[in-house]
Amino acid sequence: MTITITAFERSPDGGKGLARDTRVRWALEEVGQPYEVRLVSFQAMKEPAHLALHPFGQIPTYEEGDLALFETGAIVFHIAERHAGLLPRDANGRARAVAWMFAAVNSVEPAILELVTAKILEGDKPWTKDRLPLIEDRVRNRLGQLSRRLGDADWLDGDFSAGDLMMVSVLLRLRSSGLLDEYPNLAAYVARGEARPAYKRAFAAQLAINAAAPPAG
Amino acid sequence: MTITITAFERSPDGGKGLARDTRVRWALEEVGQPYEVRLVSFQAMKEPAHLALHPFGQIPTYEEGDLALFETGAIVFHIAERHAGLLPRDANGRARAVAWMFAAVNSVEPAILELVTAKILEGDKPWTKDRLPLIEDRVRNRLGQLSRRLGDADWLDGDFSAGDLMMVSVLLRLRSSGLLDEYPNLAAYVARGEARPAYKRAFAAQLAINAAAPPAG
Repeated sequence: MTITITAFERSPDGGKGLARDTRVRWALEEVGQPYEVRLVSFQAMKEPAHLALHPFGQIPTYEEGDLALFETGAIVFHIAERHAGLLPRDANGRARAVAWMFAAVNSVEPAILELVTAKILEGDKPWTKDRLPLIEDRVRNRLGQLSRRLGDADWLDGDFSAGDLMMVSVLLRLRSSGLLDEYPNLAAYVARGEARPAYKRAFAAQLAINAAAPPAG
Repeated sequence: MTITITAFERSPDGGKGLARDTRVRWALEEVGQPYEVRLVSFQAMKEPAHLALHPFGQIPTYEEGDLALFETGAIVFHIAERHAGLLPRDANGRARAVAWMFAAVNSVEPAILELVTAKILEGDKPWTKDRLPLIEDRVRNRLGQLSRRLGDADWLDGDFSAGDLMMVSVLLRLRSSGLLDEYPNLAAYVARGEARPAYKRAFAAQLAINAAAPPAG
């Protein structure tokens, strides 16, 4: 059955790979599954046809036969469950990999989202300059904890897993802030993720779309 | 094998059920699994023995034989996978329930966390009064989308699932803000969750600990 995902017709990041379809593309590349992409405009994302697929009017979505899924973490997990390569075979290792998937989106990403929100949605507010250091310290708190747990290991728990895929993807959002570089083992961890051939293919695929998109305006 | 979870020795909410052990207790009650609770002080949560269980120094954790898990979503999913009652039997329905679990923690909870953070961590800042309406509108955006998807259904996708357990738990954090009451179908949805006997047992169990805790200070 054909797998079809949705992605931005033109990503707000201009092709830096931070839109969430990159996470799903990466998972599909890791397990060697071909997929098709349906591009969606900002306007179409808020219309009934897309809202039927994704209640929050976002991308990516995932369609395969009579299954329609939304929410990146769930899509990556679905792919990881159906195909070898992203989850350990033993039940306990698998449960721990799922723990890192949830940790990425619920324990690490919220502080990073707050930083992104402050810069983008509240960038013009008078308080943002004074607020940013507070948010950065909350991000550092999480990064410090994650750095201590990772130590000098390559990946969070044994071999590369869907947990690492999600955590690296979340941390990539911090690159432009410089915060990641304060934790050399985390910076190296993210670089290891980016060096994976599957990530490189996923990144190139989203870049090709955004490089071809007409200029904004 | 005995299941042991951790919970606050004294919850910051004084027993309102908002600490995340309530979500795990609720899942265990839904599937009828007995469990033991180990109470952890704020100080002990930051010490090596607990950090070995939970890299972010929080509760709850979950121990069962040689499995040790952290991260509420992953623990609830583990319980739902091992025992009947929290996931549909058909593969597609199960994948969609997982989507709602991730949606609860990654699409709905971040805006709610931002509201909680603004009130608690930044409550004394000069900008908070002007910022709160912006955050509340971001929460309303998500609630509106969720409300439209739920419509007049009892639960998000067919029977009650781990997705509803997580979503109701996330929405419960909004009760004191009054925002939930602006969406009558969501308020009724949360009330349906709270009316479940398993939720009531979970709530009573955490309240019993906090009611017995010595007063703060």
